[in-house]
Amino acid sequence: MRQLILVRPHGRCYNCRMNAEIIAVGTELLLGSVVNTNATFLSQRLASVGINVFYHTTVGDNPERIQEAIRLALTRSDIIITSGGLGPTVDDITMPMIAKAIGRRMIFNEKSMAKIREYFRHRGIRKITGNVKQQAFMPEGAVCLVNNFGTAAGVAVHVGKAVIIALPGPPRELEPMFDNEIIPYLKKNKYTGTDIIKTRTIKLTGGMESLVDSRAKDLLRLSGRTTVGIYSKPGMVELKITAKAKKDSEAERHIKPIEREIERRFGQLVFGKDDDTLEGVVGRMLLKKRLTISLAESCTGGLVSHRITNISGSSKYYADGVVSYANAAKESLLSVSEKTLKRYGAVSRQIALEMARGIRNVSGTDIGLALTGIAGPTGGSKKKPVGLVFIAIVTDDRKSVKEYRFTGGRETIKWRASCAALDLIRLTIMKI
Amino acid sequence: MRQLILVRPHGRCYNCRMNAEIIAVGTELLLGSVVNTNATFLSQRLASVGINVFYHTTVGDNPERIQEAIRLALTRSDIIITSGGLGPTVDDITMPMIAKAIGRRMIFNEKSMAKIREYFRHRGIRKITGNVKQQAFMPEGAVCLVNNFGTAAGVAVHVGKAVIIALPGPPRELEPMFDNEIIPYLKKNKYTGTDIIKTRTIKLTGGMESLVDSRAKDLLRLSGRTTVGIYSKPGMVELKITAKAKKDSEAERHIKPIEREIERRFGQLVFGKDDDTLEGVVGRMLLKKRLTISLAESCTGGLVSHRITNISGSSKYYADGVVSYANAAKESLLSVSEKTLKRYGAVSRQIALEMARGIRNVSGTDIGLALTGIAGPTGGSKKKPVGLVFIAIVTDDRKSVKEYRFTGGRETIKWRASCAALDLIRLTIMKI
Repeated sequence: MRQLILVRPHGRCYNCRMNAEIIAVGTELLLGSVVNTNATFLSQRLASVGINVFYHTTVGDNPERIQEAIRLALTRSDIIITSGGLGPTVDDITMPMIAKAIGRRMIFNEKSMAKIREYFRHRGIRKITGNVKQQAFMPEGAVCLVNNFGTAAGVAVHVGKAVIIALPGPPRELEPMFDNEIIPYLKKNKYTGTDIIKTRTIKLTGGMESLVDSRAKDLLRLSGRTTVGIYSKPGMVELKITAKAKKDSEAERHIKPIEREIERRFGQLVFGKDDDTLEGVVGRMLLKKRLTISLAESCTGGLVSHRITNISGSSKYYADGVVSYANAAKESLLSVSEKTLKRYGAVSRQIALEMARGIRNVSGTDIGLALTGIAGPTGGSKKKPVGLVFIAIVTDDRKSVKEYRFTGGRETIKWRASCAALDLIRLTIMKI
Repeated sequence: MRQLILVRPHGRCYNCRMNAEIIAVGTELLLGSVVNTNATFLSQRLASVGINVFYHTTVGDNPERIQEAIRLALTRSDIIITSGGLGPTVDDITMPMIAKAIGRRMIFNEKSMAKIREYFRHRGIRKITGNVKQQAFMPEGAVCLVNNFGTAAGVAVHVGKAVIIALPGPPRELEPMFDNEIIPYLKKNKYTGTDIIKTRTIKLTGGMESLVDSRAKDLLRLSGRTTVGIYSKPGMVELKITAKAKKDSEAERHIKPIEREIERRFGQLVFGKDDDTLEGVVGRMLLKKRLTISLAESCTGGLVSHRITNISGSSKYYADGVVSYANAAKESLLSVSEKTLKRYGAVSRQIALEMARGIRNVSGTDIGLALTGIAGPTGGSKKKPVGLVFIAIVTDDRKSVKEYRFTGGRETIKWRASCAALDLIRLTIMKI
């Protein structure tokens, strides 16, 4: 009896109309040779047409486990999408296992075979070997779905109120097929939700997750059709507002007041939304105020310049940068004084400031920014530990140096320092 | 009764000693906002110690579905690893749901709380807010596992012969924790398998996938306990040899001859193996030959310097770099002549060479390397299209300039150019 309890709660959720489950088939996924990006792609697309995804499952090329996964999915999901295992090799058994799981025969599909012949003819191949033909067999009653980028057709098999959709594994076949064939098929057969799901991401910098969490606690507890989630990444925190609604405009009406409330509470901590990046936001601000910038980096080793120049058109505001690892370079390229170096050491407020002044002078830009610090894992001391970073910024009438203590490995410290530098540029431009 | 059939076949596989299942927890995964790279990482690591992974499951931050997933896993797996849901927010409920699924109380863990206090103290934060403390609660009888990169400790909970291991979601926390804490824990508690799976990755640069594929076709067709796979990434191709064996030394005996054969066939195209990176290999070579280097970058915007300085100890051979986006910077910092700039344009063989000479002179290093090109997507012309890059390298008695045509978006072109630059350094040092 205990087993029953395991399965019962899976029962379909009749409040939210359509629940989907994605089953990836492939031993290579379980060995960690391939990342399951199909599940991510399919989830995004399903959300956009109002279908909730409640489970991702991955099983290997194993007859029993594929069947089990399909049977279990049929007890709890309306839409079951499998990816992988449709190819011509002996390992490709998804199609017969679907048939077995639901007790149907495999039958030869003429439409699919015609497509395979056309595919080979198009490539100048006349002789089709036996194992390719296995791809033309499908469970009885299946609807053949066209694949324009490979020989493996997809299928839709209806089982009671549920539908099983089998797709090929390669993303370059699965992705166009899903957009061109499956989404229209789901819409035509009324599997799409009546609701759409819309997301707005508010991006915050300079704050720790626990701080943001405690100041947004009431929002994070929202439940129902509009919710807020919190996600922490090195150097930033994201608050994601998700709304379910009948129409895009209605979703926007639910999102907007929460978005404004977050902006009100966090003020300057909010640097952008959705696809915004710190470097993109800083670039737009520099462009708008017609300001130019130059950088002198030590511990970040060029990362800040790299991020700024990832933005197309950055040559309009980014003049140049110097990566000064050696002290000699600090002196020759940035005119940092030997005396200051000796007195305070390369990792100091004073040197950060001299570096910022130096790069601004040699470049003739409006803003000069400099970083110096200890990225680790070696080179730290009790007085100057790994993770200590000074960032200086100099403009026509302002100068400031900030001290930071970052944690993590070498690359994480470099990354966090680059985020802090970009944020300092952002906050400085706001005052200009 | 039908429900029973669904669950029964999951019974443990007693032939293969240890079966694992990975349960990722997080609504963001089901919305497609985040790719489940943790499952990939954990699968690779588990295979390396002979543990078969039979299932990946993903569920959202939902109390019932997390419990169900854990109960189901307990009917079919010996080792259950969860990732995510250990943070300080209201959405983080993995720990209490594990307790509920196995019928245990949650109790406060002093060791975990001490770690949290230490983590905050290190950051100069004295006041710990209430929601952080929730991270110190664990199921009764759980073993606390140390997380050195965040506040969320992991746990191991033994349930009969099975073990549930809960890990934090962020890869920068999960990955070091798994290697440093979990693998030794599994070994100590005899959860590792009888057959081990060993992988050797041979990394090639400068070659196209189709070329490597056709020259390694016979190896790629190997089947049985030793196989070879091919994986293409921007700027490099990997050949992965995988062997199953009772012992590491036996696996090595199967791998070695294939490894030698690949090295023989591809010669200088092979730059390293396993965890090697181009920047790491170049760094070791510079160190060994006691050479120093300086860089002048234009189109890569600091990326080559960033990659070189990602290596700990790079200050021993990397002196400095200049990122010269503006022509003025090319003249003032690198002594590039105005005449050459006017005559040939900033993206030319001549300027690449002058930049390399300029940075080498100002830095006094053994090697000077320079890149100039068009990263796009704008700024190209018929004569000088997007993706055109010149890379020059100058040493005491050599100088050379190479022309490349890269494809892809702005960031891909920057990446491919940085790979080509590092490879050019590698090939040049081989001749010194």
